[in-house]
This record gives sequence, structure tokens and C-alpha cells, in this order.
Amino acid sequence: MISEETVIKLLIIDKLIHRQEYVLRELAWEIGIQPGLLERIVNDMSKNYLISIEKGRIIWNPADNPSTLKPWGWLLIHKPLLGSTQEAAKGASPWSVIVAEYMLAGKGRHGKKWYSDLGGLWTTFKILTNSQTASMTPIIIPIILVRILRKSYGVEASIKWPNDIIVDNKKIAGILIEGEAFRDQILLYIGIGININNDPPLPDTISLKNILNKLTPRNRFLSLLIGWMSRMEKLSLEPEKIRENYMEYLETLNRKVLVKTLQGELVGKAVDVRDTGELIIEVEAGEKKVLDPTHTFELRHID
Amino acid sequence: MISEETVIKLLIIDKLIHRQEYVLRELAWEIGIQPGLLERIVNDMSKNYLISIEKGRIIWNPADNPSTLKPWGWLLIHKPLLGSTQEAAKGASPWSVIVAEYMLAGKGRHGKKWYSDLGGLWTTFKILTNSQTASMTPIIIPIILVRILRKSYGVEASIKWPNDIIVDNKKIAGILIEGEAFRDQILLYIGIGININNDPPLPDTISLKNILNKLTPRNRFLSLLIGWMSRMEKLSLEPEKIRENYMEYLETLNRKVLVKTLQGELVGKAVDVRDTGELIIEVEAGEKKVLDPTHTFELRHID
Repeated sequence: MISEETVIKLLIIDKLIHRQEYVLRELAWEIGIQPGLLERIVNDMSKNYLISIEKGRIIWNPADNPSTLKPWGWLLIHKPLLGSTQEAAKGASPWSVIVAEYMLAGKGRHGKKWYSDLGGLWTTFKILTNSQTASMTPIIIPIILVRILRKSYGVEASIKWPNDIIVDNKKIAGILIEGEAFRDQILLYIGIGININNDPPLPDTISLKNILNKLTPRNRFLSLLIGWMSRMEKLSLEPEKIRENYMEYLETLNRKVLVKTLQGELVGKAVDVRDTGELIIEVEAGEKKVLDPTHTFELRHID
Repeated sequence: MISEETVIKLLIIDKLIHRQEYVLRELAWEIGIQPGLLERIVNDMSKNYLISIEKGRIIWNPADNPSTLKPWGWLLIHKPLLGSTQEAAKGASPWSVIVAEYMLAGKGRHGKKWYSDLGGLWTTFKILTNSQTASMTPIIIPIILVRILRKSYGVEASIKWPNDIIVDNKKIAGILIEGEAFRDQILLYIGIGININNDPPLPDTISLKNILNKLTPRNRFLSLLIGWMSRMEKLSLEPEKIRENYMEYLETLNRKVLVKTLQGELVGKAVDVRDTGELIIEVEAGEKKVLDPTHTFELRHID
């Protein structure tokens, strides 16, 4: 279920996407609510968007509105509301990036629901690439996210195996990668959800806003992400360096972990990651187990 | 709260409003849901809309899509989703008609919520008229609705005082009239909600679909309504005839009624209606009470 107020916020975004600025009274008429109610709702939205009211006008900072971005070589499709960006990407051409403000049926790994509240950055990148790059994508994407967070925002992010991004052991970003063969290449649907200016409602989650104590214009993050995506094939030419980076950013390494798999729960120490992505844990002195990401539903650091 | 499924239906309508026909797979991509889910939802919508799937295409019968109407002398504004048509009409020019498929905050009389489910006809007519016509509007509108239902649909509708339209003692249409002075004339906001192909969820309500046992293309009803609206001033030139018509269609006359007013509940027999709209009821042999529509919250026929 969705609240009437969230739906009204999405109607407001739908109007502002193409205009950036609206006389408050006019916008109230267009969506059919009283100006006083609109004012209250817009003030509430300013907790999650760079949206403000100035002299009777509602203004959305263009640096926070993905529709104002024109990334070179990419088609950017920005919608207030979608079922999920992954499904919407199915009909788009390769080198499209889909951005939604709210997803009715957001997807996470293992068919879990991805909660997409207002103010986050919910995206799917559709790319066509060779099988070498495709096989390394699950390792490259978390590296890209950690790099952006560390170098551009000064946030000490790291990777929780296989590819959650965490800060202080709380999830800040999630990744879902789906693929299909297309002639001799691979079509990849790279879903990336980042808690930017939203207030994530689940425990053990955190947003950039929570960390920086202020709102961040989302287009900078989105531009950086698009820039890295364009360099994916180049990055994959140096698998040794990628592996090194991944191990450097991997918080899970040498931590005591609790893991839920198809076969049940396991507790052990994470000791290594294979080139193909499996995590090796030592359950007792000497005895080692190999964990496949696709059969591991949950991993928690417990030391 | 609104269900995800209702929101998806409104996204589908938003797409079909301007195209009438869509390849199912393409529409699924556009709103970001799986084609199988879209097919299931469209099949469900066909209970309330003349929408069907033929050879992989979703088709909306244009006679059921208000956006295809181009009424002479009127501006028709049709939106999938509005706060309320009454509020949306505030910003429109006179001789506009606003139609919404769903209202987040539909208004009924006395600030009651108007429940607007999918498949009904939820409209506001904005007209500029003289004070003579304006004062008779609360009596003319119910007459128009009863006439359309009787003459064009063969449905034995009548008026429940002051201006609900009922069939078999169940409400099929409601009216909310608001006005404001504009120079020496009156701007009227005439809200009319008619249960056409929806499944009204409240007790003592009924839709045209329930009565006729089939879906009705809504544009015929809307066209008839617009035609009568254009003749409002002419109708008001014959007040005696209007009064006669009103009394003829008024189910409440000579019925035993239970009435809730500001002063409490009353039981009595409805014996007359004044030219200015007040209902006269006889509470005991000889003793009469005068009921003002604006101070009467509820009236029920109890014999």
C-alpha cells in the first residue's frame, strides 16, 4: 500500500521534472489540491529533495533532478514512478540508464523486495559487453561505488561480500545484476540502489544524508557512476588489479561471519575470495567451506 | 492508502489516454512490470473499463475514454489522478469540464469524503452564469441526471432530497455545488459523480453496471451531461416547469423520513418543498418543520 501523500509527492515531481519551477498556486490547481496543503507537502519533501518554496514558487535544484542530465553516449530515462527499473530496462536500448523516484515492485537479490523511498537514487544501467567484462561486473560495480563514496564524498565505505556497500556496518547501497546472451555478447542489467537523501526505514541501513547531515544533489553521484560505467571494459582488462581492489575494500575478509545458505546456517571466519567470486570460510581449525554468492541469502559480520 | 495495483492501473490509463492501443509488451516495458503481470491486471481492469486484449494488443474503446471527446464550446481536461476535480477546476477557465479516473481527496457534501473507485465518472463543470440560474442549479442538476437515466438508459431513477440520485433506494449519483461571485455573475463549480462501471464499495450504493448487467461506454453519458449543461440558462427561464419536474422526480415526497440536522435527529413525513429548496416535514399531526439543505447532514427513507 502507498499513502495518498506519497502519491501526491510523485505528482509534484512529475510536474517539476520538466519545468524545475512552478508558481505554487498553479501547481496546486494542476494536481487538484488546496494551495495550503501543497505548501505543507512541499515543505515535507524538502527533507528528501533539494526542493524549496521561494516567493510563492516551488523550485527544484536542477542538480538534484536527473532529467536535467544529458550524459554523453547514454540515453537517460527518468520517471517518477515505475514497477521496477530492471523491468523498464528490458525495453530500452543498450547504453540506457533508467532512473525512478519510486518503485512499486523494486527488486533485490534472491527475489527480495527492494524498498525504494523518496530521495534515493534507484537506477538500472543496461549495457552490452563481452563475456570477460560481464563475468567481472559483480566485482567491478562494488569497487566503483566504494571509490565514489571514498574519493568524492570522503565516506569510509566498504564491501560486504558479495556486493553490498556498507558504512559502519550499515547498508548504504545494493546491487542486482541480471544478464542475457545477445549474439556473441552479453546484455547486462545492472541495478544499483543508493541511499542518498532518503530516510531508509529498515534497521542496519544508512543514507548519505544521515552521514553528511545534509542533502546532496544526486546528479553528481549519478554522473560519476555513468562515467565509471563507460569505462567498464577498460577496467576489466586488468583483472589482477580489480581483484586487489576488491580484496582491499572487502570488509568481510578476516571477519567472523554468520551465513544463511540453502543448506542452512554456518558460522566461521572469512579467509579468502576466489577469482570467480566464491567466499572461503574456515568453520573449524582447518575445515574450509566454499560459498557461492547465488546460493547465499544472507551474510552478517558478527565479531 | 492506495494499493500498488490501483496505482499500476492508473499508470496504464495514463498511457492509453493518448494512444487507445498499445502492444502489451511495450506497455509493460514503459511502466516497468512483467508482461504476465500486466496481462493479469488488464484483465482485471476489463471489469470496470471497456479495455481488452486482442492479439497481444491492449485496446481501450474510444467511447469509454473521455480524452477522445471534443465537446463544442467546452474545454475538457481529463486526468488519470487528481486530488479532487473541484480543486482542479479552480485554475481552469469557465466552461471547462474536469474528469478524473481517481481522486485522492474526493469531496462530497458537508466535507464528507467522496469515494471514487475506478470505472465511475467523476467530473466538475465550471460555469459562469447569472444569479437566477445559479440559485436554481441545485434543483436543475438532479433533474438533468434523472432525465438522462430515464430517457437514455431506461433506468427508473429518482431524487432523494436534496439532490442525491437513487435507484431502488440506492445512491447512483451525487452532486456537490460550490460557487463564488465573479463581478456581477457567479462562478459555479458543479461536481457530479456517477457510478457507471465501477463497483461502489459502500452499502446502499449502486452503479449503472449493476443495473444493466453490462459495461456502458461513459462518453455517451458525459456528452448528454455536457449538452444539458450548455442549456442551463435556458432551462432556468421556466422556474415553474423546473419546480414541477423536481417534485415529479422527488422520491422523498410523501415518504416517512429520518433526518440528521445540527439540532439532532427528526422523524416525520415529507410533505412539501419550497421554491428555495427547503423541505417541509410534518413531525406530528399538524406540527411542521422546515429543513435547510445546508444544515441537513443525512436523510433516509424509512417507510
